[in-house]
Amino acid sequence: MIVYLNNSYLSSDDAFISPLDRGFLFADGVYESIRTYNKKLFRYNDHLERLKRSLREIEIDFEGCDSIEYIIYELIKKNKVKNEALVYLQITRGSTSTRTHCFPESKINPTVFISVKDYKPIKNEFYKGIKTILEEDLRWLRCDIKSTSLLPVVLANQKAAEAGAEEAVLVRNGLITEGTHTNFFAVKDETVFTAPASNFVLDGITKKVVLELCKQLKIKVREEHIRKDEMKNYNEFFITSTTKEITPVIQIDDWKIKGRTEGAITKKLQVAFNELTINN
Amino acid sequence: MIVYLNNSYLSSDDAFISPLDRGFLFADGVYESIRTYNKKLFRYNDHLERLKRSLREIEIDFEGCDSIEYIIYELIKKNKVKNEALVYLQITRGSTSTRTHCFPESKINPTVFISVKDYKPIKNEFYKGIKTILEEDLRWLRCDIKSTSLLPVVLANQKAAEAGAEEAVLVRNGLITEGTHTNFFAVKDETVFTAPASNFVLDGITKKVVLELCKQLKIKVREEHIRKDEMKNYNEFFITSTTKEITPVIQIDDWKIKGRTEGAITKKLQVAFNELTINN
Repeated sequence: MIVYLNNSYLSSDDAFISPLDRGFLFADGVYESIRTYNKKLFRYNDHLERLKRSLREIEIDFEGCDSIEYIIYELIKKNKVKNEALVYLQITRGSTSTRTHCFPESKINPTVFISVKDYKPIKNEFYKGIKTILEEDLRWLRCDIKSTSLLPVVLANQKAAEAGAEEAVLVRNGLITEGTHTNFFAVKDETVFTAPASNFVLDGITKKVVLELCKQLKIKVREEHIRKDEMKNYNEFFITSTTKEITPVIQIDDWKIKGRTEGAITKKLQVAFNELTINN
Repeated sequence: MIVYLNNSYLSSDDAFISPLDRGFLFADGVYESIRTYNKKLFRYNDHLERLKRSLREIEIDFEGCDSIEYIIYELIKKNKVKNEALVYLQITRGSTSTRTHCFPESKINPTVFISVKDYKPIKNEFYKGIKTILEEDLRWLRCDIKSTSLLPVVLANQKAAEAGAEEAVLVRNGLITEGTHTNFFAVKDETVFTAPASNFVLDGITKKVVLELCKQLKIKVREEHIRKDEMKNYNEFFITSTTKEITPVIQIDDWKIKGRTEGAITKKLQVAFNELTINN
């Protein structure tokens, strides 16, 4: 695999960073995952804007944002991607000779790492739906920043995997925030519910698309927290993300959401989303 | 500088890790900072036990803990450390060929990075005391694990540095938890107060020593949260850590703790701590 690291395209076997990189020492960095449909990046500008915001929020001064799109397409070519491409992009504050918590006093170059892989989505999941578990949301209080401080996400995901589930849906103070790497939606009374934008939730790009589609399709939306103890009042559940697109949730912990998997609104949104991506 | 990385001693200029290391991608790792007095590691067993606990809590299966002490002394020799040594040690879950949140399915080798630097403490601070600021505690809910998910710590430290302070003291729901890389203590009525051990606070080794010294010196201790809005009821404040030892706090935000810097109890503890380290 050819990856991009700090101005070079090189084999992933030859790509190395210093253990003094602040990304390694402090998780002092941000990332994005982006994908293509019809070999073309989907919602690239939204991802770029979110990346810029993340960088701004943690005050990483990176001037190369305008080159990223070019680099990604170069990587797609160099890796001879056959199907679609799934792009991973990480920018850290860079590395210094000593480990000090606060930002380096003199200007250093951020570390930029980009990889692409040949990607075939597990379409089956989109139709069949997935199992989820509920987990306490242990993350920090700035989940709106797409940072690499992801240990709580790793641990929650592992719990999901051990329970035979595909995603852990996070609960903070009795309220659903989001999935570990997806946004979470529920439907009742023909209305789509999802947590409001806040420091507890990442502003997902696919979430944004879903909210746009709801508007077009005249589906009512309420950006309100779904309460854990009121879950059973909803008829449909789905998660969204760049790789999961719109995926129905058919089980939450032990609760099998029988008869609700054919969720009319989830399906309607899936069809409209599919339309969008076909025309990307 | 000679560092230790995955079974090799090598120049820090030649020490590299993969950008696919889970420490870099997910902050999926833990660390320790340890120091010597009289060229001998101080409270090494306590650090080792805490490291083992951190590894256990995030389920990193590392079998090499028993070799760490030997490696550290080798590094001290190889780096010809003249004064004392400050040791940094980080263990991550290792690297795999693909980025997946949950643990790798097959066993992989953890990444082990250890560095030592020649260390002369800023003794001046121990006598003069330091300035601190109060910052909202944005960290995750498992601060008892010494993980590298440190972005909130970086950001709070940076705010302290910008305010000309040496430490940011963190407040969660109106209660002082701890400093970004120190434990926090306050004194009133001849009694030492510090936050009780919980998931919101790291179990500091120097904190442990201080609690032992209080017992020996018959100083009363109450492991209770200090309320932000009751700070002014206390007479003395100090922070503790491996590098800060016992350092008086002489300013909190704009509040100059005048006349309280000569804190009798802080001094008593400093003298006793100094005694311990002299005899290390």
